[in-house]
Amino acid sequence: MSFATAAASSLSSLPASCTADAVLLAQDGITARRGEIALELDMRHAGRHLIRLRYELSGAVDAPVVFVAGGISAHRHLAASATFAEKGWLNELVGTGRALDPAHRCLLAIDFIGADGKLDAPIDTADQADAIVKLLDALGIRQLHAFVGYSYGALVGLQLATRHPARLAKLVAVSGAHRAHPYAAAWRALQRRAVSLGQLQCADAEGLSLARQFAMLSYRTPEEFEERFDAAAEIVHGRVRCAAEDYLDAAGAQYVARTPVTAYLRLSESIDLHRIDPAAVRVPTTVVAVEGDRLVPLSDSVALVEGLGTRGNLRVLRSPYGHDAFLKETDRIDAILSTALRGNGENA
Amino acid sequence: MSFATAAASSLSSLPASCTADAVLLAQDGITARRGEIALELDMRHAGRHLIRLRYELSGAVDAPVVFVAGGISAHRHLAASATFAEKGWLNELVGTGRALDPAHRCLLAIDFIGADGKLDAPIDTADQADAIVKLLDALGIRQLHAFVGYSYGALVGLQLATRHPARLAKLVAVSGAHRAHPYAAAWRALQRRAVSLGQLQCADAEGLSLARQFAMLSYRTPEEFEERFDAAAEIVHGRVRCAAEDYLDAAGAQYVARTPVTAYLRLSESIDLHRIDPAAVRVPTTVVAVEGDRLVPLSDSVALVEGLGTRGNLRVLRSPYGHDAFLKETDRIDAILSTALRGNGENA
Repeated sequence: MSFATAAASSLSSLPASCTADAVLLAQDGITARRGEIALELDMRHAGRHLIRLRYELSGAVDAPVVFVAGGISAHRHLAASATFAEKGWLNELVGTGRALDPAHRCLLAIDFIGADGKLDAPIDTADQADAIVKLLDALGIRQLHAFVGYSYGALVGLQLATRHPARLAKLVAVSGAHRAHPYAAAWRALQRRAVSLGQLQCADAEGLSLARQFAMLSYRTPEEFEERFDAAAEIVHGRVRCAAEDYLDAAGAQYVARTPVTAYLRLSESIDLHRIDPAAVRVPTTVVAVEGDRLVPLSDSVALVEGLGTRGNLRVLRSPYGHDAFLKETDRIDAILSTALRGNGENA
Repeated sequence: MSFATAAASSLSSLPASCTADAVLLAQDGITARRGEIALELDMRHAGRHLIRLRYELSGAVDAPVVFVAGGISAHRHLAASATFAEKGWLNELVGTGRALDPAHRCLLAIDFIGADGKLDAPIDTADQADAIVKLLDALGIRQLHAFVGYSYGALVGLQLATRHPARLAKLVAVSGAHRAHPYAAAWRALQRRAVSLGQLQCADAEGLSLARQFAMLSYRTPEEFEERFDAAAEIVHGRVRCAAEDYLDAAGAQYVARTPVTAYLRLSESIDLHRIDPAAVRVPTTVVAVEGDRLVPLSDSVALVEGLGTRGNLRVLRSPYGHDAFLKETDRIDAILSTALRGNGENA
């Protein structure tokens, strides 16, 4: 469905972005707008909570709405626009000629619930999906043209397609499956233990930094490290220092600067709580798997697609970037998205 | 060469285990003896140090001497004997009918230098090899029938075969290559950072435990975790707990109970300092690689064997135990050792 109808919908309790007045402001029919809604959420493991959900809408008036959700450190700002000029986390995949071309799509994204660090309770991927439905209601969007989810976003998309299939015409689930793999779950559990070890001594930042550095190893691959860091270890002040440590220091510091410890802990937990029945997914789904992903083994993506039956469609790519391929192999991912998003709904 | 001659050797400055008097004590020609030598070592990165090297000799009088070295947490006690009844770290691979049959071999093993935690300096694998040569001198062993090294022990064996080729007739290097892989080195660097984080406020045990738990993920594989821990995460006291966490807790606690923090740090560093030129290895070498080893990728074992040229011989096995396959796939490893140890030296 398009925005014009969305805006017209009686469900619309908040300005639905590309509304008439916004359009007047837009130079080229492309506009962007941020908002926040308050909602009461019956959480799967944590009871009822009052939550504020922040979103950003950007793209073409009247264009089909595509919801885009990324990893636990992603947020509502996908890409730079005339309205919000700073780079977004998906900047390379949003642009003229891309599958996510703001001239032909209206893109919707959120800050995940828990991302502000104010919700210190177990958060299920089902909770994220339920919150998104309340946002769609508020924006008057009856059905998304597509939901594109990467990593944690793929898990949320699978929950949405299981619990609220009427709200999306299709799903693209990249680097995310029906369950957390036991090995990947253990890896994340140890990252959370690093945070706890830091908190034990009021070194929260050091703990979170170490957790992020552990995580970086799971997001990337030995192949990439081989390319970038094949230098002998050095001895610095009597200690051995490996070639990748400068890179890991920077990755940790950058993450700590923008991430509340509680947000990291609860969203990391949320990945490990995730489990759905593939057969219960009621929406045509393209599963994109990366061979070499250390967190989501190809075998789990295959199991997911098998469970999806006729609704499932598997695309596999090999990348030295492993789990992060979605953010790095932008041309190849764009090609997959173009195919996946073509067709239905364009004229709906 | 055999022990009888070893004992007779003028080099022998310490009781060389299976000596005449020891033989009188032995029931069945099999004996075991522990000793310690003091040696001055010119260390590669740390200058001259006075070091005490502890060893254990066990097996048959007059049998060819096989030196066996394991990972950084291995020690001089390989297997239970009449003299030392407690289980050893290699108990399953030492026994009647095995390639390492104490009735037909005399087995020599050490506590690595640094293992007592008293040497707080960068330790190179070359230092371990040089210390072993001083031990062979002290025991009057001119040439080992073979050196069997696993993990860190393989790195030490490669140094011995590079620096002192006359002291061993053949080398079996299992799950260890000519260099530390950059990704594996980063993984270990983060383990050492976990220890440092603990040391920030005297939580040394917690830091070392987390380091060991993170190491366990590198020693094993997703396949094994899939088999053992495919249960949904639970919520315990408001926190998500993954299926593998009990196992990881136990592994951490067990390690902390027996390992000085300094020993762990310096031997972990030592792996990352390791780098040799495969072409400089002057001894026939069987390289045993495990497909699925997260620390030593098959590509590095292949590169090592290519560098060894005519001296190299590659054996590959696939195991869900990854880097730890040497300790778990005992029958398959024993078969490889039987082939590798057969032949030369038996009648020397």
